[in-house]
Formats: sequence, structure tokens, C-alpha cells
Amino acid sequence: MTDFYQLTMLKSYYELGMTEQAVFEFFFRKLAPTRNFMVAAGLDTVLGFLEQLAFGSEDLSWLGSQAGFPASFLERLASLRFTGDVDAMPEGTVFFADEPLLRIVAPLPEAQLVESRLIALLHFSASVASKAARCVLAAPGRMLLDFGMRRAHGAEAGLLAARCAYIAGFDGTATVLAGRRYGIPLYGTMAHSFVQAHDDEIQAFVDFTQGHPDNATLLIDTYDTEAAARSLVDLMPRLRSQGLSVKAVRLDSGDLAEHARKVRRILDAGGCRDVRILASGGLDEHAVARLLSAPIDGFGIGSGLATVADAPVADCVYKLQEYAGRPRRKRSEGKATWPGRKQVFRCCGADGRMQRDIVGLEDEGLPGRPLLVPQMRAGERLQPIDGIDSMRSRVREQLNSLPERMRGLETAQAGYSVEISAGVRSLARVVDRFTPGAKRR
Amino acid sequence: MTDFYQLTMLKSYYELGMTEQAVFEFFFRKLAPTRNFMVAAGLDTVLGFLEQLAFGSEDLSWLGSQAGFPASFLERLASLRFTGDVDAMPEGTVFFADEPLLRIVAPLPEAQLVESRLIALLHFSASVASKAARCVLAAPGRMLLDFGMRRAHGAEAGLLAARCAYIAGFDGTATVLAGRRYGIPLYGTMAHSFVQAHDDEIQAFVDFTQGHPDNATLLIDTYDTEAAARSLVDLMPRLRSQGLSVKAVRLDSGDLAEHARKVRRILDAGGCRDVRILASGGLDEHAVARLLSAPIDGFGIGSGLATVADAPVADCVYKLQEYAGRPRRKRSEGKATWPGRKQVFRCCGADGRMQRDIVGLEDEGLPGRPLLVPQMRAGERLQPIDGIDSMRSRVREQLNSLPERMRGLETAQAGYSVEISAGVRSLARVVDRFTPGAKRR
Repeated sequence: MTDFYQLTMLKSYYELGMTEQAVFEFFFRKLAPTRNFMVAAGLDTVLGFLEQLAFGSEDLSWLGSQAGFPASFLERLASLRFTGDVDAMPEGTVFFADEPLLRIVAPLPEAQLVESRLIALLHFSASVASKAARCVLAAPGRMLLDFGMRRAHGAEAGLLAARCAYIAGFDGTATVLAGRRYGIPLYGTMAHSFVQAHDDEIQAFVDFTQGHPDNATLLIDTYDTEAAARSLVDLMPRLRSQGLSVKAVRLDSGDLAEHARKVRRILDAGGCRDVRILASGGLDEHAVARLLSAPIDGFGIGSGLATVADAPVADCVYKLQEYAGRPRRKRSEGKATWPGRKQVFRCCGADGRMQRDIVGLEDEGLPGRPLLVPQMRAGERLQPIDGIDSMRSRVREQLNSLPERMRGLETAQAGYSVEISAGVRSLARVVDRFTPGAKRR
Repeated sequence: MTDFYQLTMLKSYYELGMTEQAVFEFFFRKLAPTRNFMVAAGLDTVLGFLEQLAFGSEDLSWLGSQAGFPASFLERLASLRFTGDVDAMPEGTVFFADEPLLRIVAPLPEAQLVESRLIALLHFSASVASKAARCVLAAPGRMLLDFGMRRAHGAEAGLLAARCAYIAGFDGTATVLAGRRYGIPLYGTMAHSFVQAHDDEIQAFVDFTQGHPDNATLLIDTYDTEAAARSLVDLMPRLRSQGLSVKAVRLDSGDLAEHARKVRRILDAGGCRDVRILASGGLDEHAVARLLSAPIDGFGIGSGLATVADAPVADCVYKLQEYAGRPRRKRSEGKATWPGRKQVFRCCGADGRMQRDIVGLEDEGLPGRPLLVPQMRAGERLQPIDGIDSMRSRVREQLNSLPERMRGLETAQAGYSVEISAGVRSLARVVDRFTPGAKRR
């Protein structure tokens, strides 16, 4: 699972003996206009990918017979493993444009080959985690559930969305395999088809509650939301007499605030104060913020989250910063990069709030807390996998330490300050002087 | 890989003995405002999923121990296979809102369980195929390549995007595994890092061309695009004397039209008329249309295509139409469905152009060509897998038969006519009369 040009370049690198150490960094060139900050995620998935990187024998024979690569190259691929070093921001770290979240130091072919998959994993994971963090900030104290699997772009997207939303502070997911794989709490209600398959809506409620006596959530908008709420109130004594309870009702259409108010009144008047109200259907952080005044206890957020609908693409890249001990940069119009091995230094105020970041050289000795942390050396992880709960705690702390103006849904007037250090700028000038392509200008 | 509520519903269905035949249909409730039409895709992937549907023993033990489902239910799941019928539009068929692209008739638990994955596959596949078809219409005669893997939302999205873009008329993909799995032609050039890793840009061009003597495409925007084009012209006699040729150059930054014109002039004046020009970098159908007057031979389209950036979510659903022989519909506000087993009848004019579609009952005997075709009976495919090249031909034919006003990138003033038949409308009235939830209104 890589781009064809990685293979054509690797063939040349091996033939030319260009296997010295390369330094690549992954960063976002700019954030979407609707994002005040981003949340790093996907590192564990990336490290797992690097640990298992290997060409299978079927891959190799296909590359020989169908893609026309020579045997000498395939032999090199057969023994290729990732033997490099990785430094990265832990998952759940808040970051901004121009800040490397991950640095790889490895022989050039290894560092090059992993580009496509690494970008794919980090781009989507950070995009979902950031969108989810906005939902969390928009709905303090409300339950948030990921309902996105069915409109996520394929299975991996559905799984990563569930994981990254949970890291960012969601309470659970509807995606069963994500629950199993990542230990995320699973939530599920019922579909309209359950009600429709019954000849009678009330009978559907009775049947579902009997099957799930402790935790039934009933979908009440299939025909007429308020009528269904009244039926439920009428039904409740019968359910209680059988030892059954209804945990919540779900609203999925119409004016959700208006329905929630009416349904809350019906439930309260009918002695069902303990039945909670969940809402779903086309929600995102803005919709949730608008619904805060309604008596809604939890939100199921699907398509908007799992496809990152308002910013499905972010401008992020993985770029060569150094090869064979010499710093490198590209100077393409509007896409120039800063050279060298960099570190992000975060400076906080006396109140613990983030004040500014400095992108400096790794060894520049700048003030602030360094955000890139050693994760892998010579292809081996340095520490056991960070537990998903500690990632959740990290997000909570980081969101709390964001400047107040960055925590709202609207774009902050004054952006967060990310400085490029004097050391990086001076290195760029040195690199430009010695790059033949640049000299010809 | 399903939603938790499918399992909670299945548990109830089995306990209640609700295993009679259900009819579900998948359709788009509306198209994005930027889409005049959609292209069906993903069916082969869906049929493969249905054929292999089964719970593994590890799945089942996890569902028992961690998710708390009882042994009796797990036994039912252990023997669950998809035994139903599928009728669907062949991949590459043009369709519109309200038209079912796929119908499943199966025992209720089977038909219900597959919902989440089926929507995920068809939603994304049709969305990418439709976006790709717009690119094809926008750039007649130009080579179009899928470069989207790195910003697609995960691995499955990258693979499906490559496949669906190729079905829609793209010429190839950069994603190696898509080439292997689907037989799509692979294209790859070089990255900026290849140039940067060399101390000298010209040496990078020499090295790459020697490694790929027949088909080198050189990326020339790392430092200064026109300077690199002039270097290449100077270099060409040396390359030719070694029996090497350069197939194309790639531009990836700046004003692509302006650079293409300048580079074309430099190449032509330098005797390199046969070197083609490829462009990439943030392109979509609109950008390609604007670049048509520039001397660009081919376009690499990445993020915008593979994330369907202008319409990453489409409003599509899989809804119960009939259960146990009785038609069903939901009447939720703004989300009501038409009941019964439906067929789409397409009427064309004397010129072969599409005129209007009618969504009618399967047995209503309406004029026009029926678009839903039997694909699977009792869980078995009826025909061998449709070859990807025949899907490409179908898209070509269908795009040619679109009314001229639907073929442009702008939203057609007069939409395509999709009628709901008298039979469907009258069935809806009958269903409403007999649905208890509706009666209480």
C-alpha cells in the first residue's frame, strides 16, 4: 500500500548506493480556516505500520512479473525492514501549522518508502481528533457518541474515526470492531427498520425493551415523535411491572430542539424523569452548540465527524530535511520548507496556559517544553503503547491549557504564535547558498 | 465491522422469531448541490462482502465475554450467512436522487445486519466515481491519474478511490496495491525528496533517467521550474547519446498554466517536442477545466478526488420497504420513504439521450429500460464479476447519453426528471392507512 513513485525512487536509490541517513519531518503547512488548533493522533497506528513493514513473497513476485522490476531490486526489497528512529508528539498533543509532529531518521530508502502510508494515517487521524475536540469543547458535560462508520470513507476510516474521537473526549462509538480493537465503550440503539418491521410501534418498544431490559434506548421519530413519547409514557407502568426500564429515547429528525423540549415535558409529566434524550441526524460541532439550550443529554455524531465534512483535506506533508548529514529544503513556489532537524518548544504562562511555540533546531537550546519525544530507536519502540485513557487525559489537559480565544468554534482573531527560530532561518540561508538549483535563479 | 445496534436488533429479531423476508433498498435522498448526476459503483465489493459474511469464532467469543450477548444468540450468529437476493444497477450506471441502486430481499436479520457496511461501501464508491466522472467530462482527451492515496481517509478509501476513478474513465493510479488488485495501470514519477537528496538537480535528472530509461517523468519544480526545464534541454543530447529518453516533466506548484506555457516553449525550442507535461497539486475538476487552454497533457488528481472534497458526505440510506409481505415506510419529518419493491425505468429519446426516469413498482409494467438487474439469488452471484473494462465502457456510454445540460460542471438549471409512479404513490397511501403510528397523528 504505497505510491508507485516510492518504488521507482527506491530502485534508483539502491542502484546509486544512496542509502545514507535521511531526516524527514511530517507537518501541516496550514490549518483549515475553521481550525484554531489541531490535535495529534495516529502515532500508535504509524508505529505499528513501521514495526511490521515488509514485502511479502507474493508482493515481490507481482512486482517482478507485472510491474517489471528487476530481480536485484526485489532482493533488496525482500530484506527491507524499518530500522530507523522516530521522534513524535504523543497522541493528544495540541499543535499548529509549521510544527513537525513526527520526525523519521532512517536510511533514505526506508524513510522514503513509508511516506504515502504515514501521511494517510496521520492526516486523517489528526483531522478527526481535531474535529472531535471541537465537538467536545462545544458540548461540555454532554455525552458524545461516534455514529460515523456508515458514511466514513471505508472500513479503516471508520475504525480510526472511532479511535480518534474517543481520544479527543467522546464517550463511545457504535462501531463494534472499534470497541473490540481499541477498548472503546460501545453504544447502540435501534433503527427505524425495527419499528417499521413491527405492525405496531408500541409493540416494537415492548419487544426491544424485553430484549434489552437494562439499557434500552428507543427511537421515537419513525412516525410522530410526540405521539410516540406519549405512547411510551402510557406503556411505562406495564414495562415497570415486568421489571423493565427504558434508559433513553432517541430523536433523529425534524427540529431536534423543539422535539426535545416537547418530549421532555411529556416524559416528565408522565413520571419518566429518568429517561434521557439522545439526538442524532446530521449533527456537527455547530449544530451541537446550537442545541445546548435544549434538554438533550447526549448526541450521536456521524457523517460530519467521520468524514471531517468541513475540512476533509488538510495541507500536510512529509518532507526531506537532511540527507547524508547535510540539511535540505525545497523552494517550490508557496511550498518552501524549513531545513534541518527541528523541535517544537512550547512556552506557557504562569497560569499554565499556552503562550507561544517556537520551531527551532533540535540542538538550539531554546526555552519551553520540547513536544517531540523519542518513540522508536533502530526500528524498536522505546516504550509500551500509550494507553488510550492516558491519551484522553492528555487531550483534556491540553484543551484546558489552550488560550481562551482558541477554544471557541469561531476562528480566533489573533492566531496562536508559532515562531520560526533564528537558528532555522539562518540554516535556510546557508542551504540556499549551497543548493545548485537555487543558485541558477 | 458493523454498528452495535445491528446486533442489539438481531438479538431481538431472533428472540421474537422475526426472521421473515425483508426488502431493503439503498438510495440517495438527494444529490449534493454541485452534482447533476451520480455514477453507481461499489457493487462488486458489496457482493464480495455478502458472499463472505460470517462471524469468526474470535468475534463470537468477544461478543459473549465483552459485549454480554447470550450463548443462544451467539449460536444463531455462528450459522448466519447471507442467503438473500440482490438486484442492483450495474457499476457505471448514471443515477439520480430517489432511485434505488440496490435492493436486498432476505430474512430480516441478514438484511438488517449488512446495512452499515453496505452503505459505507456504496456511499464512498458512488461519490468518488461521480467526482471522477466530472473530471473526465471536464478534460476530454487529457490523461487523468489518481494520486489520492496519501490523503484518502485510510487504506480502503485509497483502494476504492483508485478503482472507482478508473471505472469512471481515469487512465491509471499511483496506488500500487490498486494496480495489483484491480488491474489498473500504474503511474509514478519522482518526489521532491529525490531531487533534494542529490546535491545537484541535474544529477538527480540523470540518475533517475538512467534508472528508468524508457519512461522517466521528471519533477522540475523543486527549486526553479523554468531553470530546470532549460537544464533538461541542455542535458538532453547527453541523455540521448546514452540511449535514454524523458517521457514527461511534472509541474507541482505555482501558476500551473503559466509554467506549462513557458516550459512548453523551452522544451520545443530545445528540440524536446516529444516530452509531455503533467501537472499536479491541489487539482479538481474545476482547476482542470481552467487549465484546458494550457499545454498540459495530463493531470494527477489527488486529495480533491480521493476525499470527494466538495461533497465528502452524501445523503444516502438503506431503508426497509417491505416485511413479511407487507409494504412499509417511515414518515419521519423530511425523511419519509416510498414503500414497496421498486424498479427504475429509464426512458430515452430518438437520439438515444436520456429523457426521464420513473421510479415505479417492480411489477407496475412501466415504459423504459429497467435499471435494476438481478445480481445474486439465494446468496450466490448470478454472473461472473463484470470486468472493470466493461464498467469503463458503460460509463462512457452513459456520459454520452446524458442530456447536454447535465454534462457541464455547473448545476443544470433544469434538473433531470425523476417521477414517482402512480403505483408507488397509491401504495404509500395504503400503507399510511394501516400503520398504527401514523393513525395517531
